[in-house]
Amino acid sequence: MVSIVALLHGPDRPGIVAKIAGWIHERGGNVLHADQHLDREEDVFFQRVEWCAAEGEDLDAESDLFAKMAEKELGMKVRMALSNERPPVVLFVSKADHCFHDLILRWKAEELRGEIVGVVSNHTDLDHPTQEYGLPFLHIPCTEENRAEAETAQLEFIRKQGAGLVVLARYMQVLGENFLNQVDCPVINIHHSFLPSFAGAKPYHQAYRRGVKIIGATAHFVTPALDEGPIICQDVNQVSHRNGVRDLIAKGRDLEKIVLATAVRRQLENRILVYKNKTVVFD
Amino acid sequence: MVSIVALLHGPDRPGIVAKIAGWIHERGGNVLHADQHLDREEDVFFQRVEWCAAEGEDLDAESDLFAKMAEKELGMKVRMALSNERPPVVLFVSKADHCFHDLILRWKAEELRGEIVGVVSNHTDLDHPTQEYGLPFLHIPCTEENRAEAETAQLEFIRKQGAGLVVLARYMQVLGENFLNQVDCPVINIHHSFLPSFAGAKPYHQAYRRGVKIIGATAHFVTPALDEGPIICQDVNQVSHRNGVRDLIAKGRDLEKIVLATAVRRQLENRILVYKNKTVVFD
Amino acid sequence: MVSIVALLHGPDRPGIVAKIAGWIHERGGNVLHADQHLDREEDVFFQRVEWCAAEGEDLDAESDLFAKMAEKELGMKVRMALSNERPPVVLFVSKADHCFHDLILRWKAEELRGEIVGVVSNHTDLDHPTQEYGLPFLHIPCTEENRAEAETAQLEFIRKQGAGLVVLARYMQVLGENFLNQVDCPVINIHHSFLPSFAGAKPYHQAYRRGVKIIGATAHFVTPALDEGPIICQDVNQVSHRNGVRDLIAKGRDLEKIVLATAVRRQLENRILVYKNKTVVFD
Amino acid sequence: MVSIVALLHGPDRPGIVAKIAGWIHERGGNVLHADQHLDREEDVFFQRVEWCAAEGEDLDAESDLFAKMAEKELGMKVRMALSNERPPVVLFVSKADHCFHDLILRWKAEELRGEIVGVVSNHTDLDHPTQEYGLPFLHIPCTEENRAEAETAQLEFIRKQGAGLVVLARYMQVLGENFLNQVDCPVINIHHSFLPSFAGAKPYHQAYRRGVKIIGATAHFVTPALDEGPIICQDVNQVSHRNGVRDLIAKGRDLEKIVLATAVRRQLENRILVYKNKTVVFD
Repeated sequence: MVSIVALLHGPDRPGIVAKIAGWIHERGGNVLHADQHLDREEDVFFQRVEWCAAEGEDLDAESDLFAKMAEKELGMKVRMALSNERPPVVLFVSKADHCFHDLILRWKAEELRGEIVGVVSNHTDLDHPTQEYGLPFLHIPCTEENRAEAETAQLEFIRKQGAGLVVLARYMQVLGENFLNQVDCPVINIHHSFLPSFAGAKPYHQAYRRGVKIIGATAHFVTPALDEGPIICQDVNQVSHRNGVRDLIAKGRDLEKIVLATAVRRQLENRILVYKNKTVVFD
Repeated sequence: MVSIVALLHGPDRPGIVAKIAGWIHERGGNVLHADQHLDREEDVFFQRVEWCAAEGEDLDAESDLFAKMAEKELGMKVRMALSNERPPVVLFVSKADHCFHDLILRWKAEELRGEIVGVVSNHTDLDHPTQEYGLPFLHIPCTEENRAEAETAQLEFIRKQGAGLVVLARYMQVLGENFLNQVDCPVINIHHSFLPSFAGAKPYHQAYRRGVKIIGATAHFVTPALDEGPIICQDVNQVSHRNGVRDLIAKGRDLEKIVLATAVRRQLENRILVYKNKTVVFD
Repeated sequence: MVSIVALLHGPDRPGIVAKIAGWIHERGGNVLHADQHLDREEDVFFQRVEWCAAEGEDLDAESDLFAKMAEKELGMKVRMALSNERPPVVLFVSKADHCFHDLILRWKAEELRGEIVGVVSNHTDLDHPTQEYGLPFLHIPCTEENRAEAETAQLEFIRKQGAGLVVLARYMQVLGENFLNQVDCPVINIHHSFLPSFAGAKPYHQAYRRGVKIIGATAHFVTPALDEGPIICQDVNQVSHRNGVRDLIAKGRDLEKIVLATAVRRQLENRILVYKNKTVVFD
Repeated sequence: MVSIVALLHGPDRPGIVAKIAGWIHERGGNVLHADQHLDREEDVFFQRVEWCAAEGEDLDAESDLFAKMAEKELGMKVRMALSNERPPVVLFVSKADHCFHDLILRWKAEELRGEIVGVVSNHTDLDHPTQEYGLPFLHIPCTEENRAEAETAQLEFIRKQGAGLVVLARYMQVLGENFLNQVDCPVINIHHSFLPSFAGAKPYHQAYRRGVKIIGATAHFVTPALDEGPIICQDVNQVSHRNGVRDLIAKGRDLEKIVLATAVRRQLENRILVYKNKTVVFD
C-alpha cells in the first residue's frame, strides 16, 4: 500500500505535532510512523511523518494539500514523497570498483528504494562491468583544461537520466562549485576517513603516518567546501601496528561499502534533513 | 522545569497520535518528545510522550487526567511519571564490587535519575564500602534452608526503603517466584553473557569452553524463568584464543558495568515498555 | 618472493621456539613472521611461522625437511604451505546470493589467496550468475531420498575441481556425516546467528521472538554435530524493537558477508589451527 | 612465578629471533610469550619476549646479561622488567572525577600491575576523595605566572613518590616542554576525541558543531606538541542528532575511562614500544 512521507523543518512553536496529527486524522488518514526532533539551541523543529491516506484519495493531491498547510499554517519547509517513488540514481566512479559493485548488487537485491540508471567515470575501467549490468556508461576524462566541458557533459547525462540522486562511489575528483550549483539533486560522497580527520587526498596514508588505532569512513553530502559537507553516516574499524597502508585500504573497503550504502538507502527512503551543515537522520 | 512523561500501550486504532497530541495542546501543554512504535504483527501501539503542562497547572492532577483519558477513550495501559521524580533504588550484591561501585559513582555523579537508598547482600564483603558511601547495608545469608526467611527480610528492607527499582548488581542468587510475586517494583539483573547463549551459572567458563570469539553481557528484567526475562540492553566484546577464562572475566567486567548502567538509566528515565517478554526501549 | 608457512601444534616443552628459529637461521632462512600461543590448561604449543629460505633452495624440499624435523624432533603436528599456493575453492549455495557475489567479487579483486573454481547448488537460481562469472555450476537437488546419490555427485565435483576448501555460502542444507568423512578438505559454514545462540533453522526468527538487542553471524568449520563445529570468526550488530524479522535479515546479510569472507581469507592464508573444537587464529 | 620481560627494537637483520630464543634456551630459560613485529618501510625489528629463567638464577643479573647481549650483539635498544615489578603511578587530575575513580578502583581490584601513589591537581575538588582512598594529594594551582614554580613542585612530588608513570586523568592543563624534559618517566594523557580530529580545547563542543555521527577518545603519550604524541589506544561510540553536547560528554566519559585504563594497563605490563611517533602495542 502506498504511503505519503513528509519531511518538515522550521521554527518551533506549540501545537505543531497536534496540528499535523489532527490534519491527517481529520482527512481519514492513518499515521504509520512519526519521528520528531527539536534542536533546542536553535529552536528548530524537525519531523518525518509517514501515513496512509483515506481510501480512494488521490495521493498527489493529498500530498500537495498537506504541504500547503504545513508551509502556510505552520511556517515549515516541506519535502514530500510517495513511498512507491523510486528516484533515478547516477553513480560517479573512477577505478575502484568495490562501492560500484556493492551498490548495484544491493539495488538488484531490492535493498534500495531507487533505480540506478547510469554510471559516469573519468576512466574506462568500469565501462565493461557497467554494460554487463545493462547500464549506460559515460566516459569523460577530467583535467584542469576540459573541466567546464566535462561538467557540461556530466550535467547533461544526469538530466537525461532524470537523476534524483548522484552518488560519488569513490569518484576521485573534486566537483566544482559550478557543477554543484547546477545539479538539481543531492550529491552524496564517501570519504575514506572518519572526517574531520584526514580530509583531502590519500587518507589511509595520512592515517598510517599518524599511527591511529582506528580507521573510518564517512558518507556526506557534497558542498563546495571539500570534505566539509553535512555528515550522514560514519563507521570505524580497529587497526594495529601490524597493519600497513595496504591493510588499511583493504579494511577500509568494507567500511566504505557499508557506510555509503547506508547513506544512500536513508536518502532514498527520505529519512534525512539537512540544517546548518548537519543532518537529522530519522532511522 | 518539570515535565510529565506518559508510557502507553494498547491495541492500535486510527487517530491515537492525533488524540494524544490534541489533548495536550488543547490544555495548553507543549510536547517536548514523542516517540511511538507499532508492532504490526500484534497490532499493538506503544508511545512515550513527554510534555510541559500549561503554567500553573497541578502536575499530578494533569497526569491523572491524561491517564484517565488514555485508558477510557483510547483503551491504553498507562504509566505516568514526573520528570523530577527520583525513585529509590535498592542494590543486591554478592562479592563482586565492580557494578556496585560503578552504579553508586554514577548516582553520585548525577548520571542516574533516582536515589540509591540501600544495599542487600548474602555476603559481608561490601558492608564496609557501602557504609563509606553512607548507605544502609542488609546482610542476609541465603541458603536452601532459610530462603523463606531471607526473602521476607529482603522484601521488608525493600519496602522500608520505598524502592521503585531493585537492581541485581552481580547478585549471584536466584530470586524465588514467591519473592518476585511480592516485590512490587521492577527487578533488573545483569547476566554476564549475550543471552540466550550461556544462561545459568559460570557463563564465562561456558564461553571459554565453546571457543566463542565474542563475549557479551545482557541486562534484563527478572522473571521466574531464570535468565529468560525481557532483554533491555546487550553489548559485546571481541576475544581471541589468547584470552583465558580470567581474561574473559576481566573484559566482561567493563561490559557488565556499562550494560547494567544503561538499563538502569533507561528504566529510571521511564523509557522502557514491556510486552510479550520483549522490551520497547525509547532512547 | 615466495615464502614458506608452517602451522604446528603439539605438547609444550622447553626450547621449541629456539629449535625452530635456530633451524631456519642455520639453513640461511629469514623469519618474516612468527606467532605462537601456549594453551596453559592443556600444555599445548601452537605456532605459525613464515620465512624465506636461502636463495636457490628448492622450497618444496625445504618444506619437507622442516616438517620432518618438527615432527620427529619436536613431536609436533605440522601443516606446510608455500605463500604462492592458491588452493581451489568450491562454493555451495542455495537461493540467497549475497555471500556468493561477495566472495566471488573479493576473489576477482584479489583479496583472497585462492581460486574459486566452481559452484554447487540444490537450486538453479544462481546457475546463470555463476556462468556469467565464467565458473562451472553443478545443480543437485537434495532430498531425503536422493541424499546418497547427491553426495556422491558433490564429492565427485569437489575432487574433479581439486578443491582445497569448500565454503557453504548460505547453503541451507545439512551435510551428512558420510559426506564429511569423505571430503578431504576443510568445510567452512556461515551461520546467521552468534552461536551458540539460535543454532538450527531460521535464526533471525528465533532472535526476533526472543527480543535480543544484538544479532550476529558466525563462521565455523563444519562437523557432524550441526552448528557446533570450531568457531573461526563472529561479528554482531545492534538492533532495536523497531526492527522486524525482515530488518534483522537485511542487517544480517552484511554481517554474514564480512564474517564469512574473513574466515575464508584466514583459512586461505593458513592462519587457522584447530584443537579440541576451538580455533587458534593467528591474524 | 616471576618472569623476565624484554622490549627490544633496532635495525632488522637475519637471525635475531634465533639468537634471542637460543640465548634464553641455552641458559635454561623457558619462553612464555614472544611477539615480534617488522616495520618493512623502516626495516626496524620490534620484539616483546617474556621468559622464566632457570631455577635459582638471580633475575636481575640474568636481565642485565640479556640486555648486554641484545645491545652489543644485536644492536638493539632494550628495556627490561620483571613481572613482579609494580611501578609507582602518579595521577594528575582537575575537577572531573570519572577517570580518577575508575583508575583507583581498578588498581584496588588488582587489574593494574602498578601502585597508585599520589594525586596532583590544580583544583581542590578531589582532595577529599583522594584522602579517603588513603593517598597523598598535592594541590598546585596552575597559572601563567606561577608555571615554573608549579612545575617544580609537581616534579618534586613525582620524584618523591618514585613514579615510573604519570597519568593525566583529565588534567585540563598543558604540560610545558620544561616539565616534559625533566620528568624521567612516560606521561600518558586521555584526550576526549578520536585524534587527530578535534585536538585542543572542548572537543565535544567541536564534535557537536561539526555534526559527526561518531565520538571517540584517545590515550597517547604526552610530547611537547599538544595532542600529537604517539597514540596508544582509541575507541569510539555512535551518536545521533538527538545528542546534545551534554549527551556527548556523558557518552564520552565511558569511553575515556576504558581507553585510559587500557593504555595504563598496557604500559604497566610493558607492552608498548614507541618509534617515530607511533606505538607498537603487543597485547
